[in-house]
Amino acid sequence: MKQQSKQQTIGLGLAGLGTVGSGVVIALERNADLISDRTGGNVRMAVEKVLVRDPAKPRPVTIDAAKLTTDWREVVDDPAVAIVVELIGGTDTAFEIVAAALKAGKPVVTGNKALLAERGVELFALSREHDTPIHFEAAVAGGIPIIKTVQESFVGNRIHSMIGIINGTSNYILERMTEAGLDFAEALREAQELGYAEADPALDVNGWDAAHKAILLASLAYGFAIDPERVHVAGIEQVRPTDIEFATRLGYVVKLLAVVREHPGGEVELRLQPSFIPKSHILASVHGVFNAVAVHGDAAGESLFYGRGAGQDPTASSVVGDLVEAARGLHSEHGHRGFLPYREDGRLMPVEDTSTAYYVRFDVTDRPGVIAQIAQLLADAGIGISGTHSPVDPESPDAEFVDMVFLLHSCPFGQLSRTLEKIEALDCINSAPVVFRIERL
Amino acid sequence: MKQQSKQQTIGLGLAGLGTVGSGVVIALERNADLISDRTGGNVRMAVEKVLVRDPAKPRPVTIDAAKLTTDWREVVDDPAVAIVVELIGGTDTAFEIVAAALKAGKPVVTGNKALLAERGVELFALSREHDTPIHFEAAVAGGIPIIKTVQESFVGNRIHSMIGIINGTSNYILERMTEAGLDFAEALREAQELGYAEADPALDVNGWDAAHKAILLASLAYGFAIDPERVHVAGIEQVRPTDIEFATRLGYVVKLLAVVREHPGGEVELRLQPSFIPKSHILASVHGVFNAVAVHGDAAGESLFYGRGAGQDPTASSVVGDLVEAARGLHSEHGHRGFLPYREDGRLMPVEDTSTAYYVRFDVTDRPGVIAQIAQLLADAGIGISGTHSPVDPESPDAEFVDMVFLLHSCPFGQLSRTLEKIEALDCINSAPVVFRIERL
Repeated sequence: MKQQSKQQTIGLGLAGLGTVGSGVVIALERNADLISDRTGGNVRMAVEKVLVRDPAKPRPVTIDAAKLTTDWREVVDDPAVAIVVELIGGTDTAFEIVAAALKAGKPVVTGNKALLAERGVELFALSREHDTPIHFEAAVAGGIPIIKTVQESFVGNRIHSMIGIINGTSNYILERMTEAGLDFAEALREAQELGYAEADPALDVNGWDAAHKAILLASLAYGFAIDPERVHVAGIEQVRPTDIEFATRLGYVVKLLAVVREHPGGEVELRLQPSFIPKSHILASVHGVFNAVAVHGDAAGESLFYGRGAGQDPTASSVVGDLVEAARGLHSEHGHRGFLPYREDGRLMPVEDTSTAYYVRFDVTDRPGVIAQIAQLLADAGIGISGTHSPVDPESPDAEFVDMVFLLHSCPFGQLSRTLEKIEALDCINSAPVVFRIERL
Repeated sequence: MKQQSKQQTIGLGLAGLGTVGSGVVIALERNADLISDRTGGNVRMAVEKVLVRDPAKPRPVTIDAAKLTTDWREVVDDPAVAIVVELIGGTDTAFEIVAAALKAGKPVVTGNKALLAERGVELFALSREHDTPIHFEAAVAGGIPIIKTVQESFVGNRIHSMIGIINGTSNYILERMTEAGLDFAEALREAQELGYAEADPALDVNGWDAAHKAILLASLAYGFAIDPERVHVAGIEQVRPTDIEFATRLGYVVKLLAVVREHPGGEVELRLQPSFIPKSHILASVHGVFNAVAVHGDAAGESLFYGRGAGQDPTASSVVGDLVEAARGLHSEHGHRGFLPYREDGRLMPVEDTSTAYYVRFDVTDRPGVIAQIAQLLADAGIGISGTHSPVDPESPDAEFVDMVFLLHSCPFGQLSRTLEKIEALDCINSAPVVFRIERL
């Protein structure tokens, strides 16, 4: 049986021809022969229909004008389109496109993490109902094949944990604060000037972009749909130079960390927060806009997957990988390889029950007794203190301080939160305390 | 169309029930439900026949005695066996088993890098002829899914380079020499005591274990079969504490590096040597018995894949991933996903044409004029010197030295080799010079 005989060109419908969409078209053209060769001559793809907002707009790629449309239904309904690629972003029209494609039995490739994290329950149900896969390698960590790794390579592994740096913008900002001593606003401005941050950087710096990705990773590893509202998310807006300095002095690096971990009882811990991690840990070496996910499986042991987390080419690389996967899966006898949630009984661990050590910064009015008051409330709650610190100007040791830092032993986050509420009620405390996790990796 | 209806149990034939074989049986039993769930209920596997040397030997896993055999033909021919797993090692009987399985149309899963690197041409031809795949994730870097990544996730990438630390034993030995100041023999003995090195460590320390893996990676990325005899391989036996000290002082780390790189003209550089790499490079952070491969693709950009390169569980993890892949591919309409060489015109770059900077250590008889003589021959050949060094005892500056080190600017390896031959002919040179690459990563 010769494989070559089976070749046929597979028609693609592209919703969106922005940065990533153009990158996909370029990658498919540039490496078409390579893709055909590497798949034993089984996969050739051609773009048949493209959804754009403005057909007249000049673009870096040339597409036959007859293939452009402003109506997404023409992309999904075109009989020449066998696979639909959704790259418009957002959760409304994108949802309609993906849902319609699944109903039409056309596999979907998407990089839309917000869509899947927010409306995955509905879409994966449609995927199951119509036996049609959704591929989403591009939705998590750009060019890093973490989805395929967890889903296929580690299929025989119980995943103990996944710890990730999965927002390049935040990682860049934190690194610049660390290495150049910039404050948050300066580092953010620099990231925007370099094109590493959007004009509206909210989702990057408030942690939600990373949280959406972490939700997808956790769903994949543990098989159940996760309600984003139940996930504890904190961004990096609260990080100050003083926190960075303190971390550095103690041998830590501050990273926006996605922590996904299965506990012995089966509960899944899932949280997204600025964290102190030891400078010697390999995740501390993830610099600039790079992403990395450390995966611990029961058989594979410790692994790390590192690469570019965003950008035209890396994201296009993942989309193309998924397109080939989708093409090979067309008409498979053995069911598709797309992800489907398979558990109804999955349980997220309430963030109140998750335990780490902590770094807590208080904004205080300095006067005798401040430390005693805070320390007493911590002691009453049974929370151990491993150190306290306030910046002292060597030239004026009596100057009033405003930042007061406590390092606390491990305790459940709920126990800490209740205690911090009491501390916040003290007269000498001026605003809500800022909490970072100190991770044990 | 419900996926659940398609489930059937797939029979496995295991050739070899040693460390990895037992690990596979354990992993399949322990996570059978998980594998079934994650594959949409499509994949359940059962071991049907097992080749062992001594059926009476006590084992860590329980297998029905009726399923044990000492005749490999019974494994391949058993009608209940749909997939054959080859884990006996070696290149003779293993070849017969794999060839027979392919001829019977039974997909093969193997972790045997020597078999594929030495006899891949014949086996991949059989694979093509019988349209039956060979899966070999376990053959390269244990639990790290580097094969699937290159073959599937990066299918749309032209691979510029792959730089790997893919022999854990060598990496452990070099690290112990660096951190504990051990010499090669001491570090090797320690590795053997800890079970990190075989009783016969030849293939690990002479570079050939890593070279076999590098050959497979290069074949995968560039699509042609590679003759092992044309690959330049040097191991770590020649590394001395003085080399380690010198590297450290200059800001380098010594690693046994597999370098695979496509040059603009299409020639593929492939070599395996002890190399100096900058201490700041992420590969320098690959410690102990861990493995890592840095891949540079034209779309994905820089990536790194890191994890356990050997051991029962990590290797079993890769075998199980391949088994699921093989199971899903049974009766696929679109041709199998196993690797097949697709180019006849691939060219290896002669090692003489590969260029890097170099560290060269000479064993000399110290007398006036030694440095001048060596330097003159280098100058005659047009090779630039960036530094020379000989150990000096501060308390007796006139003591004779025996080691003389030269750091040389980049030049083709052939040019260096010809010059070193002339230098070696000098009276003052006692043995063949030792050469390490200084890599630009």
